[in-house]
Amino acid sequence: MSDGTSSQSPLILDALGSFFVGGTSVAREAAEAGLYGGGSLTVDQMYVQFMIPRSPSRPPIVMIHGSTLSGKTFETTPDGRMGWYEYFTRNGFPTYVVDQVGRARSGFDNGPFNRPDAAVGLQPVLRRVATEVAWVRFRFGPSAGVAFDDTVFPIEAVQEFAKQSVPDLSQSFPPDDPNYAALSELAINLKDVVLMGHSQGGRYPFETALRNPKGIRALIAIEPPGCRSGEYTDQDVAKLAKVPILFVFGDHLETPQFYGPNWLTFYEDCEAFIARIRKAGGKAKMIRLSDLGISGNSHLPMQDKNNLQVAALIIDWIDSI
Amino acid sequence: MSDGTSSQSPLILDALGSFFVGGTSVAREAAEAGLYGGGSLTVDQMYVQFMIPRSPSRPPIVMIHGSTLSGKTFETTPDGRMGWYEYFTRNGFPTYVVDQVGRARSGFDNGPFNRPDAAVGLQPVLRRVATEVAWVRFRFGPSAGVAFDDTVFPIEAVQEFAKQSVPDLSQSFPPDDPNYAALSELAINLKDVVLMGHSQGGRYPFETALRNPKGIRALIAIEPPGCRSGEYTDQDVAKLAKVPILFVFGDHLETPQFYGPNWLTFYEDCEAFIARIRKAGGKAKMIRLSDLGISGNSHLPMQDKNNLQVAALIIDWIDSI
Repeated sequence: MSDGTSSQSPLILDALGSFFVGGTSVAREAAEAGLYGGGSLTVDQMYVQFMIPRSPSRPPIVMIHGSTLSGKTFETTPDGRMGWYEYFTRNGFPTYVVDQVGRARSGFDNGPFNRPDAAVGLQPVLRRVATEVAWVRFRFGPSAGVAFDDTVFPIEAVQEFAKQSVPDLSQSFPPDDPNYAALSELAINLKDVVLMGHSQGGRYPFETALRNPKGIRALIAIEPPGCRSGEYTDQDVAKLAKVPILFVFGDHLETPQFYGPNWLTFYEDCEAFIARIRKAGGKAKMIRLSDLGISGNSHLPMQDKNNLQVAALIIDWIDSI
Repeated sequence: MSDGTSSQSPLILDALGSFFVGGTSVAREAAEAGLYGGGSLTVDQMYVQFMIPRSPSRPPIVMIHGSTLSGKTFETTPDGRMGWYEYFTRNGFPTYVVDQVGRARSGFDNGPFNRPDAAVGLQPVLRRVATEVAWVRFRFGPSAGVAFDDTVFPIEAVQEFAKQSVPDLSQSFPPDDPNYAALSELAINLKDVVLMGHSQGGRYPFETALRNPKGIRALIAIEPPGCRSGEYTDQDVAKLAKVPILFVFGDHLETPQFYGPNWLTFYEDCEAFIARIRKAGGKAKMIRLSDLGISGNSHLPMQDKNNLQVAALIIDWIDSI
């Protein structure tokens, strides 16, 4: 256990707290709700926690975690260092961290799991990622328990990282994923916001902006699972080209993967997407950390030992747009 | 949506962050984990978020929410006012808010839900509380949608409260509920801590102290579902009598309930428990708010409109022990 204490100066906040966006009401029988009696349950809501620094000097930023994780991704790192939630706040950003719809403090619709006829195939899959799978897929090293020589992920705290895994329903969402509406409501309320997503959450900024660009100042994706470069229409690309875009990828992208395409494939897809955005007159940038001589970054740069160095590069880009 | 901004002076923190306590590793097949492949999943961990004020002047306090809710209980209220998490921090307490094991950011073991033979009866019940049930059971008013004349629950924001409901596994735990071990680890690490639980979480401080009193300075239960006054042995009571104990109950306890015993029954059971503790030489106090002329409090005094007034009474008691 770490108490996360840093040697920083005090953190001075104008406000901190939490609220929800999105959400709709559904009727559930007593057996479905599971406690006392039937009635209305709210589903598809999104939990948002925030800190407002004493004198905001930069735009609001929304941080969206990836699959099988929660907003904890951006808090204290597994080895007890400051995360991006605090670092961005200290650097003048009103900072908002969400739990994706369908997991963690956002909750989910438990009805399908409690129905008398519930069975696999009739109820959503609740996904988690095994520690050994994460080790390889998130590029701590080439095989489970073996680290890259230059890894900067805090592998000594991998068991603490394993505790961050929460069941998620992201494979079960309809095409009109309720996260889009929730993020759009958040952007419109906050005004002029930077949407930053990680991994599976890395495509949310783009999909949200495509549906409604209102309130969105910039889009950032940290290691998204590809960019759908060949799927967007020219009309889609023209829409997205109106908003500045940044991608960040780490190191060891070329490592063969046991589970799906490797990260080089995803990186190259995002480079192809950037080319389309630029051709449409847009502003898009790729930061591949290893190209800058920054070695050993995993799929989780917000938890890597150089996480504040990576954050500073992102802040430089935000300042430049 | 509220941004939770208050007219307070800035919040000045020495540290804030989050970590986990507890947790054990289990092996799960690929189909059980649900993403990519099988391996180890960590289960029974407890998520803990914390704020350390600039100059702590009071002991650390741990806040444990009730059933079908999360640590959000103690953050910004449904109508956007300051919650107890911030208020206690502002009043000099290093303040720790947990998500109970088996829900929200603490995650849960999804294996039983994904097994090929999973079916109701073979998988745990995921409980949530319907909005109409909460209205009556949590004493916003005598029947769903009808408020008590003097209610101080922010009923205009009841739909925001409904968004706080998350599925929980608390009916599925073994007799040696993993929350006990996690809270005990937390108390031992923090040293000299006040454990404060609400509703279903209101018995955790007692059960934790019974198993191991180490690190525990005081026990507080906000509207627990009774106190097991007739179940504890004299030896148990003698153990608990070594730690100062406070109960807080609100108003309208006598309201007939559709779901289980009414709150007067629970209140009276806790009065009987207090009598046993005092007989054993212990220090135990009941604050029944309506006895102090404070009217209209619901089952959720940390969210009622007079929540800071109730918090101040609790702080006075902590100062007195």
